[in-house]
Amino acid sequence: MARPADFAQRRKLLKLGAALASGAVVGPRLVRAEDASPPKDGPWSQMLGPGVVDRPYGQPSQFVKDVIRRNVPWLTASPESSVSFTPLQDQPGIITANGLFFERYHGGRASVDPAQHRLMIHGMVERPLLLTMDDIRRFPSVSRIHFIECPANGGMEWRAAQLNSLQFTHGMVSCAEWTGVKLSTLLDEVGLKKEAKWALVEGADAAHMDRSLPLEKCLDDCLVAYGQNGEALRPEQGFPLRLIVPGWQGNVNIKWLRRIEIGDQPWFTREETSKYTELMPDLRSRGFTWLIYAKSVVTFPCPEKPLKGPGIYEVRGFAWSGKGRISHVDVSYDGGVNWARAQLQEPVLPKALTRFTHEWRWDGKPALVQSRAVDETGFVQPTISELRAVRGVNAIYNNNSIQTWQVKADGSVFDVQLS
Amino acid sequence: MARPADFAQRRKLLKLGAALASGAVVGPRLVRAEDASPPKDGPWSQMLGPGVVDRPYGQPSQFVKDVIRRNVPWLTASPESSVSFTPLQDQPGIITANGLFFERYHGGRASVDPAQHRLMIHGMVERPLLLTMDDIRRFPSVSRIHFIECPANGGMEWRAAQLNSLQFTHGMVSCAEWTGVKLSTLLDEVGLKKEAKWALVEGADAAHMDRSLPLEKCLDDCLVAYGQNGEALRPEQGFPLRLIVPGWQGNVNIKWLRRIEIGDQPWFTREETSKYTELMPDLRSRGFTWLIYAKSVVTFPCPEKPLKGPGIYEVRGFAWSGKGRISHVDVSYDGGVNWARAQLQEPVLPKALTRFTHEWRWDGKPALVQSRAVDETGFVQPTISELRAVRGVNAIYNNNSIQTWQVKADGSVFDVQLS
Repeated sequence: MARPADFAQRRKLLKLGAALASGAVVGPRLVRAEDASPPKDGPWSQMLGPGVVDRPYGQPSQFVKDVIRRNVPWLTASPESSVSFTPLQDQPGIITANGLFFERYHGGRASVDPAQHRLMIHGMVERPLLLTMDDIRRFPSVSRIHFIECPANGGMEWRAAQLNSLQFTHGMVSCAEWTGVKLSTLLDEVGLKKEAKWALVEGADAAHMDRSLPLEKCLDDCLVAYGQNGEALRPEQGFPLRLIVPGWQGNVNIKWLRRIEIGDQPWFTREETSKYTELMPDLRSRGFTWLIYAKSVVTFPCPEKPLKGPGIYEVRGFAWSGKGRISHVDVSYDGGVNWARAQLQEPVLPKALTRFTHEWRWDGKPALVQSRAVDETGFVQPTISELRAVRGVNAIYNNNSIQTWQVKADGSVFDVQLS
Repeated sequence: MARPADFAQRRKLLKLGAALASGAVVGPRLVRAEDASPPKDGPWSQMLGPGVVDRPYGQPSQFVKDVIRRNVPWLTASPESSVSFTPLQDQPGIITANGLFFERYHGGRASVDPAQHRLMIHGMVERPLLLTMDDIRRFPSVSRIHFIECPANGGMEWRAAQLNSLQFTHGMVSCAEWTGVKLSTLLDEVGLKKEAKWALVEGADAAHMDRSLPLEKCLDDCLVAYGQNGEALRPEQGFPLRLIVPGWQGNVNIKWLRRIEIGDQPWFTREETSKYTELMPDLRSRGFTWLIYAKSVVTFPCPEKPLKGPGIYEVRGFAWSGKGRISHVDVSYDGGVNWARAQLQEPVLPKALTRFTHEWRWDGKPALVQSRAVDETGFVQPTISELRAVRGVNAIYNNNSIQTWQVKADGSVFDVQLS
């Protein structure tokens, strides 16, 4: 991949910064070793640390204990029907740590005993089945890296109710390596009847969360997953079994999956009529808006990660699309007037978070930082104005608009919207 | 990717299994839904679970609490200079969960304060530098998925001291997405002098663990990493800073990295003379044997995961090579007489764990299950006999030989070696 055009210039500046020792005005603050002592022995260098026996299951450093999921108490009626947000401002790569993967519950976090859990597949099928977890693990398996996003991610932005936080504007998206059985394998096993067109997928939680899915998607790339980032699915993600519907909104990725009923029409469940629909300006509702369209966000700088004085920075962010791979990402520093091509970090996988970076020399003047993703189908991430013109401001779902971060002269960063 | 040749046959057998209801003799035990009640409401379906506020940092389900790192107390003199093994038998995909990533300490787990941590780069350079963590995070960053393996992985097998456990024979390899700065970027910053040929890399732990590395490798693909699978590096992996030397043995991937000295020859440190060398049959020592050659292992079946009666199984495993991508993996069920091509799971990344699967109809007779990896350079994983013929049995390091699992008629699985 080509280096950005300003890289050679940047190198000169950084070395200049080094030569200027601690008085550097551009680039990182670099101290000449001649002027400094070698790294001192901290207490950790002077005594043995704990050995291998004290933590059979490891935990993060005590020094990063503020990197946690956070919730917004007033957002929903109860914590059992609420959301916690991933700290994307501290996520270095495309994989979200299992402990930080965002949560969304409709009836709280079910604690399911895998020995008692069953998956029933019935309805318009030739051979209805009831499967144990052991049965499911015996089927041919696949592993896939995919994001999951709640369609309410960014929902507070429709009416500009900004919380001035990347974690709260975009933290309802996370990405993991999932392992399980292709749903098509299980549906082949039961044998679909000719008239079959839809599936009802239902969870074992107290909400009995359920959604209708067209069989075309079920047979395409859905997974019945039991593995997540190297271990069993987390309880927050539906242990022991979750449906993964790659690129489609989070709520159809049914957690604690216990039942799949096959039919010839959608069920119009509560969660796809009174919920997860979008009220349009003409008072009609958009329903079944499952697909996550191309979206991106700059994760550095952001409100939680301000700039520290003028100089060269690597702007960083994530892009994703439910339609496939990210084709490219452009970055703007003047609110969308001029755009520059960002670098994509490998691997670029379909329906997965994709990391992008761009070298930026910040001159210390106010700036409007944006990113705009384009996916392999050519879909271009829209502005919030473009979305509002079509959908109005009644809905809270499916805001995939370009995020604008206002950088002030002191380096602080604010969530703003351009009219 | 093509389905295995026996897949169509398998499908017939599975459906037969279903038709035979619970008396199925082949394929998973499948119960017809007509003969069974729908999934019952467990207690988790009858009451609200905890909401989003109780676990800002998530943990695994209470039902998988036996999936942990394990150590072998007699293996080393103390737990502070020991190893814990990843439960590969329960790792579903290529990413190892951070909590289960294997540990190897030389002076225990250092608990380093990132605010006080410094990285010094000095020696044969134009502009020696002392960098804070903030400095390091400002440099251009990359993310890469790579395995790390201790060269002692499988070391107990040289003399057939089998512990009858996949976790203990192969659990000193793990794989993560690392994020950090390319070491070449930092070396470009300090400016290498003409005579520079080697780097000494040193940790801040009580062992002051240090190794010599040729600059050619440093400038190729090494990373100074601060991110691991979506969060800060774990303390077990060197928080806040670890050198990642892709495809080279674990101990050169210096944890708690605090110093890089540039010179014109290796330092011959304790860890590369009295340790991490291999005594050959002629009593000479092989040194600087950094590279991990192509290797693979079947993770199902394995001693911890026996077979449950004759039938169709998906055999699963991992392959990896320090030289690049895995090209293909073959599987044998008769101790290496006949081989069949396994399927590789995407993504196949250089110097990363690669997952393979193969459909196997087990007839219930004793079998000898093996896997053999070939990498993109054409290197073929050897047998233990081939390795012993060259290296003798004095060494414990760099055993990348083909593992044999003996499956007995009752489905139990044992670690054996073929003469």
